[in-house]
Amino acid sequence: MYRHGGDIYRNRITADHSVSINPCEWPGELKDRIVSAMRDETLICTYPDVLNEELKDMIATYENTVNELVVCGNGASELISALCNRFRPRKVLLEAPCYCGYERAVKASGGEIVYAYLDEETDYSDHEVICDILTDGKTDHEDIDMVILALPSNPTGNLISADTYARIADICREKGIIIVADECFIELVMSGDDYERTYGQVRYDGLIRLRALTKNYRLPGLRLGYALCDDEKKAEALREILPEWNVSRMATEIGLVCLEYEISCRAGGKIPGYMEESRRYIQAERNRIERTLLDLGLKVCNGAANFILLYSEVGLYKELLKDGILIRDCGDMNGLEPGFYRLSMRDVDGDDALMRSITRAIGQSSITV
Amino acid sequence: MYRHGGDIYRNRITADHSVSINPCEWPGELKDRIVSAMRDETLICTYPDVLNEELKDMIATYENTVNELVVCGNGASELISALCNRFRPRKVLLEAPCYCGYERAVKASGGEIVYAYLDEETDYSDHEVICDILTDGKTDHEDIDMVILALPSNPTGNLISADTYARIADICREKGIIIVADECFIELVMSGDDYERTYGQVRYDGLIRLRALTKNYRLPGLRLGYALCDDEKKAEALREILPEWNVSRMATEIGLVCLEYEISCRAGGKIPGYMEESRRYIQAERNRIERTLLDLGLKVCNGAANFILLYSEVGLYKELLKDGILIRDCGDMNGLEPGFYRLSMRDVDGDDALMRSITRAIGQSSITV
Repeated sequence: MYRHGGDIYRNRITADHSVSINPCEWPGELKDRIVSAMRDETLICTYPDVLNEELKDMIATYENTVNELVVCGNGASELISALCNRFRPRKVLLEAPCYCGYERAVKASGGEIVYAYLDEETDYSDHEVICDILTDGKTDHEDIDMVILALPSNPTGNLISADTYARIADICREKGIIIVADECFIELVMSGDDYERTYGQVRYDGLIRLRALTKNYRLPGLRLGYALCDDEKKAEALREILPEWNVSRMATEIGLVCLEYEISCRAGGKIPGYMEESRRYIQAERNRIERTLLDLGLKVCNGAANFILLYSEVGLYKELLKDGILIRDCGDMNGLEPGFYRLSMRDVDGDDALMRSITRAIGQSSITV
Repeated sequence: MYRHGGDIYRNRITADHSVSINPCEWPGELKDRIVSAMRDETLICTYPDVLNEELKDMIATYENTVNELVVCGNGASELISALCNRFRPRKVLLEAPCYCGYERAVKASGGEIVYAYLDEETDYSDHEVICDILTDGKTDHEDIDMVILALPSNPTGNLISADTYARIADICREKGIIIVADECFIELVMSGDDYERTYGQVRYDGLIRLRALTKNYRLPGLRLGYALCDDEKKAEALREILPEWNVSRMATEIGLVCLEYEISCRAGGKIPGYMEESRRYIQAERNRIERTLLDLGLKVCNGAANFILLYSEVGLYKELLKDGILIRDCGDMNGLEPGFYRLSMRDVDGDDALMRSITRAIGQSSITV
């Protein structure tokens, strides 16, 4: 069954607001470098480095860590699967709602799932329920050996509080539970410095953070993600279960181009990097869209990401498809109910068209979900 | 530890005879189509189809099967890992010598390995020892639940006899053992018709065959392989454990271009397809190289593939590196001993340079392995 955004293959659409990639185009200089790299046929005709050495080094520089703690993947989705297959958790705690790929990966590896239902009252932003479940002493919760969190949460787009996160980490450290923190969207929400100030104290050898160029650098067709481990042994264990040559040569080279560009922007300090420009746009555009949606009387979930979760009694998914616009229907997500939709930002014109379509749907349609 | 061919990343080389990809350049028309497809930026900026529908359909047409029996992978290496993680064999029978990636995947998934040592006397071509092990009644062999074979074998390059293969399949059918047949090089050795005539009768619901465009279509930098199952349930089970969007959009589109080209050549019948041209070249070039190697007094393993296994008392790996030529040192492979090397074919000029380098090494060097 198809359960993701981005299904441009089974819908005739003109604008895809269902996939949450960076809405900003590549800056001119970066685009030139990417296009030039793409034209190199040897990227197709030669094997990638099975050890990903150059890529790991570049990521380590970018992330201010060491190459030994970096594990490269064919998109973050491969790393989620690999984590489940490698560590074979018996029972995994997931937030609800959350990205459906976690459930799929856990089940495929033979694990069970416990859901921590986030409270709609707080716009799903209070994650203390995770601490409660991990410490309630119930037999059913004692064998939880992995927790998967998302920073920011998806589809809600909000960030866990640093205090709650630290408490979860303390409990997990004590109980030997692995935390997988899916940070694929974090760079579109906060800078590296802000991240360090907010979450920098949350570190222990069972924490594995996932990041993806797929989302941040608009490369979903190429597939490139990485895990940042706090423990070298876990990094090596993860590498052992990944297939050889899992990162294509094309993804490797274009990944290098992107990270090198960003590192040089940071070092030069003259122009803002692609990530900083993207964050500025997303923050402003989010405010702009939210105002329109609130003016339309829609319920909008408070968040910070490049996507917005909203509730509407009008069946927006089908209505917007009439205008060739694809959004993510979240009505089938555990922890949500029919009527929830996730909209991803695009450029201003695209978002304006989206707002017009929603306005039309809400004004004219009497179809309810 | 690095244990593969193709390590152009840690050696300064001018010619790589260590990786066994198709030695023939893309035909002009195919090359034009590939280069044109590569220039499409949307292949980077949009998600691949998570269901791989179009690609599965094209592969099914190419392989004369149905889409439901096809599973797409990020190279055959991903499918080998996925098979081990999905079916979690307790004990896997491998030929020795064989490709080292099988051992790695089996061990990472927690399985044990039993080796069927092939006999050097027969140039490792007699695979009856596999039947012997599967039926010898030894306690240690009773829980073998997967057999991995390669057609042709790698690094020997020879083909299992149809009779032996049928006997192995009969035993495996009866005992409920899965056979994974790695056929990544088969298209460079025999046509689809020849394959059907030779091995077509070997079919049962536990047989899973792996194929790769990586090798045949010179796309190792892109990563694209597929599994052909005889049982729809096994195909679905395999898909369930694979990560979402495992095949990049670039690999999907260029894979479609390659297969479409080949299908149209076959249908038109006017020009030989890329595969047929490649087989003709490989057969003639193999004969030519073999004669030179035999004239030099080297021991050459009888085979049919685009690579040649040979034995030399001179340390060829280091000697050839002096000329900037990389070959595969097979001295560390289980079932072989120091002095075995695998040479992959390239174009005539490249192979001539390789022969000159070997002649120099053997004539001048007194270094022994």
